[in-house]
Amino acid sequence: MRQNLALKKWRSGQPSIGGWLSLGSVHIAEMLTHAGFDWLVVDLQHGLTDYTDLTRMLPAISTTDTTPIVRVTENRPAEIYKVLDVGAMGVIVPMVNNRAEAVAAVAATKYPPEGNRSFGPIRGALYGGPNYAAEANDQIACIVMVETAEGLENVDAIVSTPGLAGVYVGPSDLALALGLPPRGDTDEPRHVAAVERIRDACKAHEVPVGIHTGGLDYTRRRLAQGFDFVTLGGDAALLMQIVTRDLAAAKEAAAQR
Amino acid sequence: MRQNLALKKWRSGQPSIGGWLSLGSVHIAEMLTHAGFDWLVVDLQHGLTDYTDLTRMLPAISTTDTTPIVRVTENRPAEIYKVLDVGAMGVIVPMVNNRAEAVAAVAATKYPPEGNRSFGPIRGALYGGPNYAAEANDQIACIVMVETAEGLENVDAIVSTPGLAGVYVGPSDLALALGLPPRGDTDEPRHVAAVERIRDACKAHEVPVGIHTGGLDYTRRRLAQGFDFVTLGGDAALLMQIVTRDLAAAKEAAAQR
Amino acid sequence: MRQNLALKKWRSGQPSIGGWLSLGSVHIAEMLTHAGFDWLVVDLQHGLTDYTDLTRMLPAISTTDTTPIVRVTENRPAEIYKVLDVGAMGVIVPMVNNRAEAVAAVAATKYPPEGNRSFGPIRGALYGGPNYAAEANDQIACIVMVETAEGLENVDAIVSTPGLAGVYVGPSDLALALGLPPRGDTDEPRHVAAVERIRDACKAHEVPVGIHTGGLDYTRRRLAQGFDFVTLGGDAALLMQIVTRDLAAAKEAAAQR
Amino acid sequence: MRQNLALKKWRSGQPSIGGWLSLGSVHIAEMLTHAGFDWLVVDLQHGLTDYTDLTRMLPAISTTDTTPIVRVTENRPAEIYKVLDVGAMGVIVPMVNNRAEAVAAVAATKYPPEGNRSFGPIRGALYGGPNYAAEANDQIACIVMVETAEGLENVDAIVSTPGLAGVYVGPSDLALALGLPPRGDTDEPRHVAAVERIRDACKAHEVPVGIHTGGLDYTRRRLAQGFDFVTLGGDAALLMQIVTRDLAAAKEAAAQR
Amino acid sequence: MRQNLALKKWRSGQPSIGGWLSLGSVHIAEMLTHAGFDWLVVDLQHGLTDYTDLTRMLPAISTTDTTPIVRVTENRPAEIYKVLDVGAMGVIVPMVNNRAEAVAAVAATKYPPEGNRSFGPIRGALYGGPNYAAEANDQIACIVMVETAEGLENVDAIVSTPGLAGVYVGPSDLALALGLPPRGDTDEPRHVAAVERIRDACKAHEVPVGIHTGGLDYTRRRLAQGFDFVTLGGDAALLMQIVTRDLAAAKEAAAQR
Amino acid sequence: MRQNLALKKWRSGQPSIGGWLSLGSVHIAEMLTHAGFDWLVVDLQHGLTDYTDLTRMLPAISTTDTTPIVRVTENRPAEIYKVLDVGAMGVIVPMVNNRAEAVAAVAATKYPPEGNRSFGPIRGALYGGPNYAAEANDQIACIVMVETAEGLENVDAIVSTPGLAGVYVGPSDLALALGLPPRGDTDEPRHVAAVERIRDACKAHEVPVGIHTGGLDYTRRRLAQGFDFVTLGGDAALLMQIVTRDLAAAKEAAAQR
Repeated sequence: MRQNLALKKWRSGQPSIGGWLSLGSVHIAEMLTHAGFDWLVVDLQHGLTDYTDLTRMLPAISTTDTTPIVRVTENRPAEIYKVLDVGAMGVIVPMVNNRAEAVAAVAATKYPPEGNRSFGPIRGALYGGPNYAAEANDQIACIVMVETAEGLENVDAIVSTPGLAGVYVGPSDLALALGLPPRGDTDEPRHVAAVERIRDACKAHEVPVGIHTGGLDYTRRRLAQGFDFVTLGGDAALLMQIVTRDLAAAKEAAAQR
Repeated sequence: MRQNLALKKWRSGQPSIGGWLSLGSVHIAEMLTHAGFDWLVVDLQHGLTDYTDLTRMLPAISTTDTTPIVRVTENRPAEIYKVLDVGAMGVIVPMVNNRAEAVAAVAATKYPPEGNRSFGPIRGALYGGPNYAAEANDQIACIVMVETAEGLENVDAIVSTPGLAGVYVGPSDLALALGLPPRGDTDEPRHVAAVERIRDACKAHEVPVGIHTGGLDYTRRRLAQGFDFVTLGGDAALLMQIVTRDLAAAKEAAAQR
Repeated sequence: MRQNLALKKWRSGQPSIGGWLSLGSVHIAEMLTHAGFDWLVVDLQHGLTDYTDLTRMLPAISTTDTTPIVRVTENRPAEIYKVLDVGAMGVIVPMVNNRAEAVAAVAATKYPPEGNRSFGPIRGALYGGPNYAAEANDQIACIVMVETAEGLENVDAIVSTPGLAGVYVGPSDLALALGLPPRGDTDEPRHVAAVERIRDACKAHEVPVGIHTGGLDYTRRRLAQGFDFVTLGGDAALLMQIVTRDLAAAKEAAAQR
Repeated sequence: MRQNLALKKWRSGQPSIGGWLSLGSVHIAEMLTHAGFDWLVVDLQHGLTDYTDLTRMLPAISTTDTTPIVRVTENRPAEIYKVLDVGAMGVIVPMVNNRAEAVAAVAATKYPPEGNRSFGPIRGALYGGPNYAAEANDQIACIVMVETAEGLENVDAIVSTPGLAGVYVGPSDLALALGLPPRGDTDEPRHVAAVERIRDACKAHEVPVGIHTGGLDYTRRRLAQGFDFVTLGGDAALLMQIVTRDLAAAKEAAAQR
Repeated sequence: MRQNLALKKWRSGQPSIGGWLSLGSVHIAEMLTHAGFDWLVVDLQHGLTDYTDLTRMLPAISTTDTTPIVRVTENRPAEIYKVLDVGAMGVIVPMVNNRAEAVAAVAATKYPPEGNRSFGPIRGALYGGPNYAAEANDQIACIVMVETAEGLENVDAIVSTPGLAGVYVGPSDLALALGLPPRGDTDEPRHVAAVERIRDACKAHEVPVGIHTGGLDYTRRRLAQGFDFVTLGGDAALLMQIVTRDLAAAKEAAAQR
Repeated sequence: MRQNLALKKWRSGQPSIGGWLSLGSVHIAEMLTHAGFDWLVVDLQHGLTDYTDLTRMLPAISTTDTTPIVRVTENRPAEIYKVLDVGAMGVIVPMVNNRAEAVAAVAATKYPPEGNRSFGPIRGALYGGPNYAAEANDQIACIVMVETAEGLENVDAIVSTPGLAGVYVGPSDLALALGLPPRGDTDEPRHVAAVERIRDACKAHEVPVGIHTGGLDYTRRRLAQGFDFVTLGGDAALLMQIVTRDLAAAKEAAAQR
């Protein structure tokens, strides 16, 4: 079976950079995979993307070695099964609040007896290649998000769940959980402390830890803070960064004529 | 009927800035219209976009006052009719080689007796509003592209076609027509001369002239050169500009850890 | 091969009633076929519908015996071939101006040696059933529209084209051709005369003649005038008739509270 | 942030009229919003519509000031989050049986600390405008349906749930709950009594109350009965009303020839 | 209301053959229904198919008398309601572990008072025909899958659930449940015993029992073993059987030239 | 730029085997590319496939080294440009009747000065890789079909067109052109003679020649007859071969019980 290259990096302690696909666009998926991201996340939770889009985006990501990961809508086994069947090499499960939820998420990513994943990897086995059934439990990554007040409280119990491939910090929801405005790239002391607490718990339990950012500045900071996998930004957000800046400049040039 | 605000700017000599939609994405169309472009072009010629996408993108553009324009696949009346019926306020017709082709393009955008457009503006009249049938011939903009060797030769005959709303320069095809590599943002003297020749012909005949660019730098230059409407860049190109630059920086930061 | 029931009615002089699908909706196609129309036209010319929609609408129409017909975008053989391949039992070809164009339209609907249709009825033969290749030339209906000034002038030459299954009047374009506003349901004398001229030419040449209407009132009139097949109205138009009327009444009731 | 105009009417006691979109059609959504409904509901529960359709229908509704609301499939937080992220200004949650379920529905529509909505309003903030994060909890409407036997029993506990924006009566399911055939527009005494009971509970707790109808007749009656927001009918149902009636008349006219 | 012909066969003890649609293709659905399968299952669980595809595939299946069935993603009432609303005549519910889950599955397929199905059969009633509301509880088939370790343990309690139309064996998941590799067409003694145990429980309780196979060989065996309804294979699997075999032969022929 | 591996085989005289995609299915495209075809043709002419499908199928084909080719609807430059822009490495142009049409087809596949292709390879350059603009004229294959009576007459003039990468025989249309029923896999003497005439003309002019077949038997024969590239069959046809055969056998087994 095909190796999960992102997982390999995480396991070996090498930092990696990922992209985030919110727009459901097949061609953006293919462009970003050619751009050289280590992994790309198709976001089914907050994005505009549905399962039908996913079935067309994953082949586009599969044109290179970039590892395809899916953030699912919620911690629901049937959805996790289905995104793995179509070829995701990992899932990010949002809003995990406690150990039981983390255990359930991990179980949904593994075939019995280690878990309860149902068998039918219609595209997963095509992409994954020979021996998928036997090796998938080892190659498929289950990543849970710690981002709620309850999750923060249970952070040690969550991150020490056996079989977990990584933990992902959602800094905007974390801000809301702390009673702050939902900004993820922030120096607010309570937010900084919460992020550090999650990171430290992961380090203590030797679990790779990742985080979302809004762009290059915080990507650099998060790498410097020891995060193992960092999202440079989403397609929609990055596009609007350049459009906002360059359109303002162009309009100014037009106005001055 | 709704005024064609882009056309109004062109007619009044005010420079304007447009965006270019190559990705067929409804949400990018809506984001860019909110970003404040004067006009947005849905590209059916080279983009990944088909008519079905167009029917979903135009409502998204219609959430603001940005003027929706469509570059059609070719100079074919039935296609021009259909994109107008679905609510485009103008068309850009590629590869117009001579006066006869320009006349045909204009005719396809106007109802008899001024042209041969067939009646059935199923979404056009919904978006355009009352009196569409009577006023569309005046509000719908027909723009032709001069970008081939033959077109360059016939530039005066083309740009003086009655009823033309504007001329758009495709600098990449123009480069190929001159025996140069297909770069549009270039200082190559023959290319510069050809661009000037088209611009000057338009100025002489008092026809608004626009041009495609690859980004802010050439947008500024083209405005300074007197172009009336300038495309800041396409969605795919702008996204890849920022991704390429920021991903390289992020990877460097990761490598240095 | 399956009989073309609409064509059978036309050939036997029985009047028939059709519906018009402009919205590209699979479920509306299925609802209207269950409602009992003799034939349904999927409009690729002015509607919002593209070929992809057509491939999904035709199976829905095939759940009853209603005859599926497609109005193509233009008189182009490759498009006519493709809509027949996917299971249309007839085409309506818009804006036919003269005998040569009518001959070309007919030829595109028939396999050699009678025409030039290319072989590959991927869904047509599935729906049409055994012996499709041998019988399609007889069962597939080619209908041309007479609606332009030039077409009106050449009406006798057009309607007497061998192999033609019927003639369809587009009264809105006809109005434009006469220098009138594009209203189809009208008593304007010149319009009445033009409609009669087409109808009489068809009667003289024993060709079934049909016409578009905006609703029940003109459907009744056109039947009384001897038209063989009459379109009761389009899905979009009928829906807006009832919505406009009933919403106004409902708002009035709300206002009076 | 953009005001929720439907909610404003409900809060101020002004009756309002809505439409219901069951067909998943972008263009019908746009036509009905132009027709002047106060609010339009995209039905994900019983309609043919999926999330992908919703992402294309909401921009079409956003071309006017009509308030877009979504009836979700079920009372599941992840689904509620996602339809709000894409720009719904309210949700109708079906089959709410008791106070706990109503509390859960409300919580899913509000960011912490008032609820548990996750942050990521990718299109919601684009459509909602500046200050979305801070004001959404006040502008987003959570409406629950009382339509089951258990719900009817707990009607007071449900309608008094804090943060509820309204209650919607599903009269067909209510009929089934009472052991009646699933007709919503009915004078059956037990049905009348149940509808009154829900309405009165809402009035007692000063919660706006709405109801579904099958057309103009019952819309008028429900307004007269004091309902605050009334659905005139669904796109599919209204279209079939006029088609059934007019096609029968047209066929009769054809038969009489 | 239309009879459920598959259910009729099962009830009368006639063996029947079904097909499995994993590819979400409208045209494959139509081809296979014309091929003469007694029933066709659209797989929402492991296939590439989403609800949007389903809405387009069901009309294609409705062009013949083949009975349309849907395997849902999971045992969730809202999903079961929605696939029935769009016209499925039965559901296969995966991974049913115990009596309570079987009872819940059955309840979701029946209107009150027998169950809790919500009313709104937008396409179901169109396809099902007159009297759908009254007869659907009898014509809609609820089939549960016994395929997990827990399900196997509770097999008698599950298959004796009132209102159950049938039981379907998923032999791959069953293999995993037994600690075997996920092969369904197998002679492994423990697997054989488990399959027999389920079959015998069904026979004892007079519930029709079906099973999945990978092709003709095991279809024959399962029929001989007394299974009432047997799946010949999935579209993807059957296509790859012939492609793998014939492409190898063709390449050999090419190599020998 | 990426090498066109199919073209390389043809140029070096190595026979190759292709597949034919008529169903517009992304997953079938991906399955067949993994199956090991040398090249795959997406059929836009007779299949159910439209440009939108193509944009999703090409990434799926790009997951391996199989060469993607598109049969266009007709010999129309704008369509040829657009399928190349989206990443086809070659086109098959149907119904080429004479030298002028062959010259036009070739010109549409090459940038000036060798042809008239317009520049904008939005996905083509992503897939093709560095130096696409400079090398595409050499790597993109233009293949024309000889299949009409007129084409057969002009076969030498057609196949000797400079820049042609190959000739493809459409044996069904060829049969119609000869006054025979549209069967491609046939021993009818006139058909045999016509196929040989085209093959011999290609051999004389040293142009690779390919042909369509209905399955393995004729694939072997055509290879033995010296054809350079042979289509084993289409997805729809191959699937129905196995389904028809195995379903009949399964039904027989069921009937015998």
